[in-house]
Amino acid sequence: MKPTITAFECSPDGGKGLARDTRVRWALEEVGQPYDVRLVSFAAMKEDPHLALHPFGQIPTYEEDGIAIFETGAIVLHIAETRAGLLPGDAGARARAITWIFAALNTIEPPILDLTVARIVEGNRPWATARLPLVLDRIRTRLAQLSVRLGGAEWLDGAFSAGDLLMVSVLLRLRMSGLLDEYPNLAAYVAHGEARPAYRRAFEAQLAINAPAP
Amino acid sequence: MKPTITAFECSPDGGKGLARDTRVRWALEEVGQPYDVRLVSFAAMKEDPHLALHPFGQIPTYEEDGIAIFETGAIVLHIAETRAGLLPGDAGARARAITWIFAALNTIEPPILDLTVARIVEGNRPWATARLPLVLDRIRTRLAQLSVRLGGAEWLDGAFSAGDLLMVSVLLRLRMSGLLDEYPNLAAYVAHGEARPAYRRAFEAQLAINAPAP
Repeated sequence: MKPTITAFECSPDGGKGLARDTRVRWALEEVGQPYDVRLVSFAAMKEDPHLALHPFGQIPTYEEDGIAIFETGAIVLHIAETRAGLLPGDAGARARAITWIFAALNTIEPPILDLTVARIVEGNRPWATARLPLVLDRIRTRLAQLSVRLGGAEWLDGAFSAGDLLMVSVLLRLRMSGLLDEYPNLAAYVAHGEARPAYRRAFEAQLAINAPAP
Repeated sequence: MKPTITAFECSPDGGKGLARDTRVRWALEEVGQPYDVRLVSFAAMKEDPHLALHPFGQIPTYEEDGIAIFETGAIVLHIAETRAGLLPGDAGARARAITWIFAALNTIEPPILDLTVARIVEGNRPWATARLPLVLDRIRTRLAQLSVRLGGAEWLDGAFSAGDLLMVSVLLRLRMSGLLDEYPNLAAYVAHGEARPAYRRAFEAQLAINAPAP
């Protein structure tokens, strides 16, 4: 049975690939696993059938014989654990790849998401302009550390892994901000991730839903 | 060989158990794995030998023959994968337990950490008082959803798992705020986690370093 994921019926980003289903699509494309997509409206996301799958009323979810899970990190890890291509076989390298999954989602993404809070959610508050530089500097602290660790390497730890998939996905949120360009090796790393055929297929699949050709 | 973890030489919380090594100690206690601790000063955390282990200059780290990792989530998952007691054997239940690890760290903890930013990091900024209610309401949104999902259950998905260990650890950050008391089932859930003998041992071990008896 093919797995089924959920995605926005109409993504808030209009198809820029920032909705989290893109990360799951990318993982499925990397391992060559076909999948079905069930689109969910904003209203349906807050109703019982979807809340039974996802208690926080978000997308994506993932269903497959006997498995029903949420949280993008858990879904990508599940795909990586059950199909070849996203985790190395060596125990030490595998543990490091999983470390980068958590580093992407827990260390790098939170200050990046705070930029959306600062600019959009609190964008019309009286403190919006004065607070923004603080938020940007917290992002720069993490990007500088990541840039040092990556150095001139192609991927974070040898071969491409689920850790890179999530780190590139998280950094892609910064494209519009210009912040990524302050760290040329990180910009190159993200471009390298985006160039992967599996990423292109995932991006095109979400774009076809969110910005259909006229 | 016993694993070695790192912890603060002097924890900013003075031994309240909120430093992230407590989470790793708790996991090791649950599975009955003895461990060594290497204490790191704030200065040493930013120097090369520690940065080689942890590129973001934090604690905890985890080392054991051939394995050297960071990120609390990755460390707890590694312990849970390599020892019995923190993940169920059934594939569906195992995937759900891992989902709760990610939900604790990626969905519940970020708005809670923002409370520290609002109260401490930006506590003397002109917007501190006006912004605080917004931050508290974002936490309440998540707590309300988690409270509905937990209902009257003892743990999030049947037996205690690494997902509960991290969820309880994350919610413990709210004790001082009084927010937890707005959701009696979550307060009871946290108390239930704290009552586990493995948690008590982990708490006492970090307290012995951070608040030695006079």
